[in-house]
Amino acid sequence: MTTKRIITLLSDFGTADGYVGSVKGVIKTIFPDAEIIDISHDIDPFNISAAAFTLLNYYRHFPHDTVHLAVVDPGVGGSRRPIIIRTAHHYFVGPDNGIFQYIVSREACRAYEINTAVVGRPVNSATFHARDIFAPTAAMLARGASPGELGTKLDRLAELSTSVISKGGSEVIVNSVAIDRFGNIIAGFSKEDLARLKKEKVTGLRLKTFVTDTINNFYSEKKVGEPLALWNSQDFLEIAVCKGDAARFFNFDPANDKIYVQLE
Amino acid sequence: MTTKRIITLLSDFGTADGYVGSVKGVIKTIFPDAEIIDISHDIDPFNISAAAFTLLNYYRHFPHDTVHLAVVDPGVGGSRRPIIIRTAHHYFVGPDNGIFQYIVSREACRAYEINTAVVGRPVNSATFHARDIFAPTAAMLARGASPGELGTKLDRLAELSTSVISKGGSEVIVNSVAIDRFGNIIAGFSKEDLARLKKEKVTGLRLKTFVTDTINNFYSEKKVGEPLALWNSQDFLEIAVCKGDAARFFNFDPANDKIYVQLE
Amino acid sequence: MTTKRIITLLSDFGTADGYVGSVKGVIKTIFPDAEIIDISHDIDPFNISAAAFTLLNYYRHFPHDTVHLAVVDPGVGGSRRPIIIRTAHHYFVGPDNGIFQYIVSREACRAYEINTAVVGRPVNSATFHARDIFAPTAAMLARGASPGELGTKLDRLAELSTSVISKGGSEVIVNSVAIDRFGNIIAGFSKEDLARLKKEKVTGLRLKTFVTDTINNFYSEKKVGEPLALWNSQDFLEIAVCKGDAARFFNFDPANDKIYVQLE
Repeated sequence: MTTKRIITLLSDFGTADGYVGSVKGVIKTIFPDAEIIDISHDIDPFNISAAAFTLLNYYRHFPHDTVHLAVVDPGVGGSRRPIIIRTAHHYFVGPDNGIFQYIVSREACRAYEINTAVVGRPVNSATFHARDIFAPTAAMLARGASPGELGTKLDRLAELSTSVISKGGSEVIVNSVAIDRFGNIIAGFSKEDLARLKKEKVTGLRLKTFVTDTINNFYSEKKVGEPLALWNSQDFLEIAVCKGDAARFFNFDPANDKIYVQLE
Repeated sequence: MTTKRIITLLSDFGTADGYVGSVKGVIKTIFPDAEIIDISHDIDPFNISAAAFTLLNYYRHFPHDTVHLAVVDPGVGGSRRPIIIRTAHHYFVGPDNGIFQYIVSREACRAYEINTAVVGRPVNSATFHARDIFAPTAAMLARGASPGELGTKLDRLAELSTSVISKGGSEVIVNSVAIDRFGNIIAGFSKEDLARLKKEKVTGLRLKTFVTDTINNFYSEKKVGEPLALWNSQDFLEIAVCKGDAARFFNFDPANDKIYVQLE
Repeated sequence: MTTKRIITLLSDFGTADGYVGSVKGVIKTIFPDAEIIDISHDIDPFNISAAAFTLLNYYRHFPHDTVHLAVVDPGVGGSRRPIIIRTAHHYFVGPDNGIFQYIVSREACRAYEINTAVVGRPVNSATFHARDIFAPTAAMLARGASPGELGTKLDRLAELSTSVISKGGSEVIVNSVAIDRFGNIIAGFSKEDLARLKKEKVTGLRLKTFVTDTINNFYSEKKVGEPLALWNSQDFLEIAVCKGDAARFFNFDPANDKIYVQLE
């Protein structure tokens, strides 16, 4: 039993209602030495795929054995399972709804269904799972418990409906997975997807009126105000506008606008 | 003199102006071992009753002897007093304007008017009370001072104008005290109000076109998209829509729409 | 080599994308004992002068040897230099774009250009400077490194285009530098500017329809709802409305509306 200490928090709760405050209080009560680090509570409500993508941005940069609590949980109170995921260097705690999908698809890991009788208060429909199940689990892991003490191994996890919504031989049609604060549009297509489809490279991309046969490497390869496509620092395809806001430039509607990716 | 260490922060300051930053700096300068935990700085400006309700959501979950700093203070610079409240397990620091009302009405407590000459810099109209009075007070309490060393006992505190705005024998008309991030409407009527009015139970509730004679226990007792009334986890009456946004569903206007509660 | 420990964070990144999360992870990995204190990530995107003004609000209140990381960086990837500033009591890390201008103009200080080969990963256009250069620099300073070990001395720094946009003998025309959460309009004119122009005092001020020959000391010198001009607690001229929102009252447009200051 070794002490891990750092617990990061990601949610769509906002802060004004005090729900996040109660999560922090529970953690500090169970494990006073926990160091709580806020990532964000401003994920769009119920947007699991945005949270999944945000996780990719930070988890690897934390010290080994950090516990990452991530809760965007539209299915709370339903049948979705509370889980722990253990990778080589990190722990993850949250609902089994695809929020950890990018991690699971990138790293060797073990998954556990949390035994709520071990970690929490009695569970009923009024249970606030983030406070009553996930927070105690994270605190116990940070204090030194092993996932096997708090849950039972799982073989399969829920998956996000993939954002690759159609594929022919040489084209895939994808949704965006995120629009960042600067208006960059992140497409649901990564170098990992490329490998999975056994393709060599992306030869072009189309979004509304924007058609390009160049995937740039740097923003600065275009002039100020010009749109471009590039592989971003998470190895996802991104549509940007040099020193501009691509989502505004294209009047982008994440619910309806598709991105067409040509492969070779 | 024992060390308490944790100081939680709640305000309506936002963070962009740096006011909260200065509060944190003052705390760390006075008591470097203080552990500062942000609850929220996104309370609606000047909304004392929203802050009062938010406090209820988290304070009990923190370890004993946590110091809770809470500042929503439209009367700053006026005659309202700066206070400390001591309950069995927690300390509270902020303005005497009703922000601690739900705590005072639920727990045995002692109240103290802060002696500004003891805790702070000289006070004048330009004083920023959160930074110059409340932050030093919280830091000194966390470092081990007793409330009696920092202030003088008070007998009466200011009260929020109660949200129970009219009562006949069998009906009370109340405002909402909060709308949470998910659109749930929290009515200004708790199980404690029920006891205070010496009534047995709530037999029905009306809000605009919604009339019900059932107070549910769980969201899941209704179908997706249907409205319901229930006792929430803070023991307040709440109007919700199963997996939906009640405030939007009812086009709820907190300034004008009333909730009619039938009692027996 | 002494330990400083506290690192404050200011940015325009928001939190939802996880960029700030990655900055925190890098800091904790390099220096696990660092104590990270969020100031704000809600600075208006690319608004360097707002960030510069916010810094003034908090930095002095922190303990000696605090490291202040501040990144609003529209020129990232261009030629602007990454810098460290050392004042008598504080360290600052960020881009050389004027964000530290108010500090440099107020305090004796030394400036250093960060040697990216010493602190970071190899730098290329895809580098996320906040994560890859500024965060490691701040962590190393907090851990005890001296600025001279991490960079080379600089003689001149970039300056914000001053907000004093025209001056005759007795009048200066200035922009606002910030509008705070409560709608107070902060003019780009401080007591320091007054001294620099070798003037004795401000004898009047004009903003749109508001003309006054009085610079008040306290909000309470006016009636509720009345506009006033005053020296605020950062010694900047401020236009406020007693218990109201001046920006709304004047329908203030920071891009176009000028403030005319009479001097004597």
